[in-house]
Amino acid sequence: MPKPLIALDWGTTRARAFLISDKGEVLQRRVADQGIQSISAGGYPAAFEALAGDFRRAAPDAAIVLAGMVGSRNGWIEAPYVACPAAPQDLAAAAITAELDARTTATILPGLSCDDGAFDVMRGEETLIVGLGLADGIACLPGTHSKWAEVKDGRIVRFASFMTGEVYGLLRNNSILGRLAQEPQAGDADEGAARGRAGARRAGGLLNSAFAARTEVLAGRMPGGAVGPYLSALLVGQEILGAEALFGGHSQVHLVADGALAESYGGELAAAGREVRLVTPEDAFVAGVKRLAAGLQA
Amino acid sequence: MPKPLIALDWGTTRARAFLISDKGEVLQRRVADQGIQSISAGGYPAAFEALAGDFRRAAPDAAIVLAGMVGSRNGWIEAPYVACPAAPQDLAAAAITAELDARTTATILPGLSCDDGAFDVMRGEETLIVGLGLADGIACLPGTHSKWAEVKDGRIVRFASFMTGEVYGLLRNNSILGRLAQEPQAGDADEGAARGRAGARRAGGLLNSAFAARTEVLAGRMPGGAVGPYLSALLVGQEILGAEALFGGHSQVHLVADGALAESYGGELAAAGREVRLVTPEDAFVAGVKRLAAGLQA
Repeated sequence: MPKPLIALDWGTTRARAFLISDKGEVLQRRVADQGIQSISAGGYPAAFEALAGDFRRAAPDAAIVLAGMVGSRNGWIEAPYVACPAAPQDLAAAAITAELDARTTATILPGLSCDDGAFDVMRGEETLIVGLGLADGIACLPGTHSKWAEVKDGRIVRFASFMTGEVYGLLRNNSILGRLAQEPQAGDADEGAARGRAGARRAGGLLNSAFAARTEVLAGRMPGGAVGPYLSALLVGQEILGAEALFGGHSQVHLVADGALAESYGGELAAAGREVRLVTPEDAFVAGVKRLAAGLQA
Repeated sequence: MPKPLIALDWGTTRARAFLISDKGEVLQRRVADQGIQSISAGGYPAAFEALAGDFRRAAPDAAIVLAGMVGSRNGWIEAPYVACPAAPQDLAAAAITAELDARTTATILPGLSCDDGAFDVMRGEETLIVGLGLADGIACLPGTHSKWAEVKDGRIVRFASFMTGEVYGLLRNNSILGRLAQEPQAGDADEGAARGRAGARRAGGLLNSAFAARTEVLAGRMPGGAVGPYLSALLVGQEILGAEALFGGHSQVHLVADGALAESYGGELAAAGREVRLVTPEDAFVAGVKRLAAGLQA
């Protein structure tokens, strides 16, 4: 018999909590700033109570499944990485349990590791990828450290991280380029994106093309409002080129994003000739955690 | 008749001053923190007096030539950029004069611009490149914003900037990678350099390979002391690849550097199969400013 499910995507800076009925419907959802970096050792049962105590009272028999950095060395209990290639059942089988109170345990899902030239890890994204329900395909999960993953025969066979979001923040806010940047005015976003897209494909590479954001503005050839959009398109374009070199030029990409990232990555992927299948991170997480929870119950 | 020369390489954060005899020998040299960012409008005659007043008293008839950011919009007086391709005599012809006092003028050398796909500029480096005395060749001037330049028939035909030094500082000190970095111990520099060099050539590109500095340390496969050397070799390697794509794979590179940059760029250029001709920035500047000063007197 399926049970209700309380599922948390519990990351470094944020937690997303869902109460899911035994029929698979999301009954309640909540986002809070209580990421693991704000929780001290031993503080997890109390933090869970604050995040989802009312979900437990509403569904006392619910299974509790936690994904993300909560299972890292700096989280509640370390759930060791599962190595690629990994099927959903491999992830479910490697889950560990943690005691919420004397009568209740929570299941902590493992992360995923990949040793394909460079060693790489993810925690949380694997659940979203499972949620895509792919037999074969390429997933792109943009963020501070974007992930691209390849799925074959229902298994995540390899993946790679890109520091795109973090490098964007550093260049936009902490580098010499930021001094010339202004809030985008009408037309600046399109102009910056078009120029950054061209920059991503220039022969000199990222370190050369980034500098052009400064010289083009100083020369009066690009408005300061285009600097941010330029850097965004340049970095996302470089990420797409890198992922293409690693995983081949798939015609279709499953993009797990919403808001500004859905817009920027969707735009750059389309400009690179890819067909984009967009799924929100919440939908992907709910689908993935339901699938993994079913594997736990099996 | 050649005259003595007082020459300043006057940049944003630093000034280097030289007293050069009428026979071309450096009689005195000085480095000071009085870059143009520390000087207010109207403060240049006094700043010059502090930097080189004793040189003037020692050689009252000396010509005074200033290169670098002192000729920028934010410097003393703007000396407009000369467009590539440019011969030394083109640079000398575009120099402007500024009044130090009622009886004395200083010559401010122009910067150089290049519009080869992306617009780019330099101020100061053109004098060092002239100092190499090349008929044909490739020059690499490492730094916060490294410059590569191509010289043909004695003219600087094009150049490109790379944000290598600045991005290194951001990744090493302000990114998530810095948290795992430690002071290099014995062997760390070589291990980090070898891994970073391989990372520079991995298909995923800079944004992907940079992240490996974190995962390799977290996995216990690389010491924290290797993070800095890894990032340095990765970024310098990417710069060399970008320059190769822009300027072709010349077998010989004229490297204008000293200290740690001479070591890191020399090592990465040699690993990339280039023959390195090393010149210090001071020697290149002195040779360049002497040549340009002779053009001014002509």
